[in-house]
Amino acid sequence: MIDTRNDKAMSQSDCLIHNGLVLTLEPDEDPLNHGFVAITGRKIAAIGQAYGATDLPPARETLDVQGGVVMPGLVNTHCHAPMVWFRGLADDLALQEWLTKFIFPAEAGWLDAEKVYRGALLAAAEMIRGGVTTVADGYFYETEVRRAFFQAGLRAVVAQGVVDFPAPGVPEPRNNLQVAEEFIESGAQFHGKRLISTLFCHSAYTCGPDTLQRAKDLTRRRGLPFFIHLAESRTEVAEIQRRTGLKPVVYLDRLELLDERTVAVHTVWLDPEEQELLAGRGVKVSHCPESNLKLAAGVAPVPELLARGVAVGLGTDGAASNNNLDLWGEMSLAARLHKVWRADPTVLPAAQTVALATRQGAEVLGLGDRIGTLTPGKEADLIVVDLNRPHLTPLYDPFSHLVYAARAADVRHVMVAGRWLMKDRRLLSLDWPETARYVSRQSRDLAAFCQKLPLT
Amino acid sequence: MIDTRNDKAMSQSDCLIHNGLVLTLEPDEDPLNHGFVAITGRKIAAIGQAYGATDLPPARETLDVQGGVVMPGLVNTHCHAPMVWFRGLADDLALQEWLTKFIFPAEAGWLDAEKVYRGALLAAAEMIRGGVTTVADGYFYETEVRRAFFQAGLRAVVAQGVVDFPAPGVPEPRNNLQVAEEFIESGAQFHGKRLISTLFCHSAYTCGPDTLQRAKDLTRRRGLPFFIHLAESRTEVAEIQRRTGLKPVVYLDRLELLDERTVAVHTVWLDPEEQELLAGRGVKVSHCPESNLKLAAGVAPVPELLARGVAVGLGTDGAASNNNLDLWGEMSLAARLHKVWRADPTVLPAAQTVALATRQGAEVLGLGDRIGTLTPGKEADLIVVDLNRPHLTPLYDPFSHLVYAARAADVRHVMVAGRWLMKDRRLLSLDWPETARYVSRQSRDLAAFCQKLPLT
Repeated sequence: MIDTRNDKAMSQSDCLIHNGLVLTLEPDEDPLNHGFVAITGRKIAAIGQAYGATDLPPARETLDVQGGVVMPGLVNTHCHAPMVWFRGLADDLALQEWLTKFIFPAEAGWLDAEKVYRGALLAAAEMIRGGVTTVADGYFYETEVRRAFFQAGLRAVVAQGVVDFPAPGVPEPRNNLQVAEEFIESGAQFHGKRLISTLFCHSAYTCGPDTLQRAKDLTRRRGLPFFIHLAESRTEVAEIQRRTGLKPVVYLDRLELLDERTVAVHTVWLDPEEQELLAGRGVKVSHCPESNLKLAAGVAPVPELLARGVAVGLGTDGAASNNNLDLWGEMSLAARLHKVWRADPTVLPAAQTVALATRQGAEVLGLGDRIGTLTPGKEADLIVVDLNRPHLTPLYDPFSHLVYAARAADVRHVMVAGRWLMKDRRLLSLDWPETARYVSRQSRDLAAFCQKLPLT
Repeated sequence: MIDTRNDKAMSQSDCLIHNGLVLTLEPDEDPLNHGFVAITGRKIAAIGQAYGATDLPPARETLDVQGGVVMPGLVNTHCHAPMVWFRGLADDLALQEWLTKFIFPAEAGWLDAEKVYRGALLAAAEMIRGGVTTVADGYFYETEVRRAFFQAGLRAVVAQGVVDFPAPGVPEPRNNLQVAEEFIESGAQFHGKRLISTLFCHSAYTCGPDTLQRAKDLTRRRGLPFFIHLAESRTEVAEIQRRTGLKPVVYLDRLELLDERTVAVHTVWLDPEEQELLAGRGVKVSHCPESNLKLAAGVAPVPELLARGVAVGLGTDGAASNNNLDLWGEMSLAARLHKVWRADPTVLPAAQTVALATRQGAEVLGLGDRIGTLTPGKEADLIVVDLNRPHLTPLYDPFSHLVYAARAADVRHVMVAGRWLMKDRRLLSLDWPETARYVSRQSRDLAAFCQKLPLT
């Protein structure tokens, strides 16, 4: 039996992934046993079920995934990829101490363009291995991150960081928006090549109102996403209130920064009025629970935001505060954390949590029409998860396993825009051991640099 | 240079694991670069450092672990191994609904000895793959669990479940202690073979005071650990108070159940008086954060218990409420959760968290003199963690990586009592694919059974 949704299935496709348990992530669609996905060029040509080899539509390349889950690639809505350099360098510290004693000095005094590039390559390897196909990144020297992600084959929204103090590659803060604009302009060459270039205002406490407004205008004119860390910690909230007399969300609203292309990251400390304001303005939210817990920032009101209709995606944050770029851990934690936080085990059930990491993540980044579900006509960004593992046996509900039992290492194949980035756990676009050797070698220099930092 | 701690290193050992980053987990000992561990028979003969091949002590078998972490095997202080049958069968439900509508009926009406055996084999495969070398298990038909773990080569404390209502294999509750005693007596044949047999009183709400006291006497006479779920949920606390007028810990203390061989599992809802009482009696605690969150039970006061000197280990609980048997997830969650819960990012730092999963776990089970650290004279229960991975690069602090970045799939080799259970990720003691096929096949029958359950 063939049940296709698109006539193209009968013409020859470039690649046919078959014998899978296909989760389209389209709302209310059931898993497809004996499912296939046909890919032509960059796009999904057809999806269906076939119970025998003779029922399969023709294809130049076929891949039998032996009952594995075929699903949309994961969308990491918040990352600072080059911060893999700082993975495990300074843990278990208070946020302000961590930032001011280690991260900011190391960024300012040690990082350079080459190191940002190599760090982003290593981060890309980690993310692809863990089934991330799209990532939203914000950092400095972001041209280097873009170069690394382009090479790695990832889909990405890359955003040049903006702060009102000296930053890596931007020693003169008054040039911060000029650097960001040049970054965006130079991104034109990547249009249609999986990469969208924009900017990331670090926060309302590191950027003044003029910078924030000019930055938002710059992205608004171009229809680009505008990223900002928002209400991550109590300290931040108190600081904004001290400076402006306003709650952070209200402050940003007064500056007219809030609209449907604004992505607010963290949003831990929101009162109901602020939640309502974000929902009313159509603001998107990136939720990073592993980072929020590790820094003891707090727990974001995710069930409340979802109930108000806010699109929420999951993010890893950087490896300095997480310390991994693994969205499987974020899914597992999000689904559990909000249950205990609300004392309600029915909150964030498994299927909804998988949607946060895929369909809703795509919506957060403004890519909902192109990725986030397996749908004919959308880009072929997909992953295959190996279920043939003791910890994934038996199988009653694939969504349950994806959230509560699966791990990054269970991802077996990864495709972005019709191109295999990983097959049988082998990375095809990157030479990660070479990158890892470089990073390991140079990390000794970074550790020595940090030991010389004045302990203030 | 050779820095050995034991003259035996110079005589030929059976196995030499070398070129590792050795974490002994002895308090205050630093990681040993270029470290080796020599094993003779079941035991660790020597530990040291060697910077060249000619410096290595002689051994019949040598294994170059290429810079991987060599550390004590993980100790899972709480599991119901056969519940892998229920993994993902019913999620995102309230505890009482989950127990009474699915778990209890399925246990009573569907499980049999053979299925318990097969489930325990599958659980053993999952745990060994994830670096667990010792597990404390409590269930029914526990002779079958013991048989499976013996075959798998695991070290275990296996405990026959005791409840005052009909249970799998114990249709007549008045026989529950007799069955448990027979289980313990028949365990004599395993003495010295890694397996300790005891009993597990389910809880103070499913066992009456007479059962509890007789059970404790039975274990006390034999110097065995006595396990009990304690203060897991608010409902349980309210029920005990309704029946007895006492808080759960005070109630157990009145029954004289609390001593240094009692292992209290969960201990989520403890007030300071109860914490003090547990500490004063020398009671040990098993902390199962993934299960506690998934069931929205609550967050145990682990930092407070540790501050009072209580030995706390980590446990996975069963795969019905977790849904995995992966202690790496428990480490990552414990270290993060208690930070946000206390709004203090310095709580449960990485090295302390690794100690909970190893040295303290061994103490909880009364095995601190035999396992839990890498120490000459102790049993050779150890694992090797592969650091040559993008998500574990660079390396500044191995404890940080083990807690915040590593995952079960990073475990490469596993040894228990000098015997390799896994080498290069290949299980040597179990034919897990055959077991997985059996469980998958029979799980359809269980799903059909559950669909016929009356929805009360």
